[in-house]
Amino acid sequence: MKPIVKSGYIQLFIVAILVILIITCMNHQWRNKNKITYHPIGMIHSQYTSETGAPRQGMLEPDMPVRVELFNTYKTALVGLEKYDYIWLIYHFDRVKDWDSDVRPPHSNPEQSFGLFATRTPRRPNPLGLCLVKLDSIHDGTLYIRGIDAYNGTPVIDIKPYLPSIDQVNSHINKDNESDLGLDE
Amino acid sequence: MKPIVKSGYIQLFIVAILVILIITCMNHQWRNKNKITYHPIGMIHSQYTSETGAPRQGMLEPDMPVRVELFNTYKTALVGLEKYDYIWLIYHFDRVKDWDSDVRPPHSNPEQSFGLFATRTPRRPNPLGLCLVKLDSIHDGTLYIRGIDAYNGTPVIDIKPYLPSIDQVNSHINKDNESDLGLDE
Repeated sequence: MKPIVKSGYIQLFIVAILVILIITCMNHQWRNKNKITYHPIGMIHSQYTSETGAPRQGMLEPDMPVRVELFNTYKTALVGLEKYDYIWLIYHFDRVKDWDSDVRPPHSNPEQSFGLFATRTPRRPNPLGLCLVKLDSIHDGTLYIRGIDAYNGTPVIDIKPYLPSIDQVNSHINKDNESDLGLDE
Repeated sequence: MKPIVKSGYIQLFIVAILVILIITCMNHQWRNKNKITYHPIGMIHSQYTSETGAPRQGMLEPDMPVRVELFNTYKTALVGLEKYDYIWLIYHFDRVKDWDSDVRPPHSNPEQSFGLFATRTPRRPNPLGLCLVKLDSIHDGTLYIRGIDAYNGTPVIDIKPYLPSIDQVNSHINKDNESDLGLDE
């Protein structure tokens, strides 16, 4: 076979490509070393879109019916969950792209700002949503729930039962004085 | 420059390497399409190791002091969190490698099994821990807390304030009848 380009430079070129390939792989490995990788287990089907907006907190629309459809692999792992009336839904705010350290929650004093970890803003370093929802029923791997602030198509990461023995405490923050903190986002 | 191997096959070889490179990249992109990638924001420093074990739930050791050290980038985002006495800690069970759909919680009826989503087992498709902890104080980006079930070195994903208005409900499950479900894992 006759070479199109006659030159030892071609062999140099091959070596260069191989070096780039190795560096790329090592860089990728290094960057992934501290990453945590999750896979969606299902999807939220709600009436909220980026056009309509979503309530700041699901509890502000406690009766809005929402469906959570689990992917096939995970459907059998729901056995027994129907005994619970409330469950934790943990999901990924997939439309959030960035975050700021300081947050000015809506309806709060405009001169005051808060660290994002002192608020429930979706714009977080790891944009993970946590919502306590009412579980109405489960049919064929689909959860019929109420009271969630997530957009249609939001990926679900985890589902846990609400256990008052570990999830309920007597905080000095309560429903009456909570808004005094200005942290209702 | 004199080529070491004289042949047009070298050019074929280059094309083959490029094709492999492109296929690898596309495959990687495709596999990552549905992945959710998070980065640890800090680390848990506890007295629990894989040798000593950890309590099944943090609330079972409510007075055990634990430190959560945030990485530098995130320290300023804690402003205002000190007003809360209880916070949610969301962390990654980094020692969990697999999961089963069926779980037999400890102390439950041995003939009965539960779907993993009806339990709080760490062995989950996305091994994410959720724990309500007592916040004692915050100094220089380190949270001094009590009552957590995580091993020393566990990566932290998120911190949220405990807000009774959205995190507390009157469930028909309560501290007295909870153990009847056999789901105390």
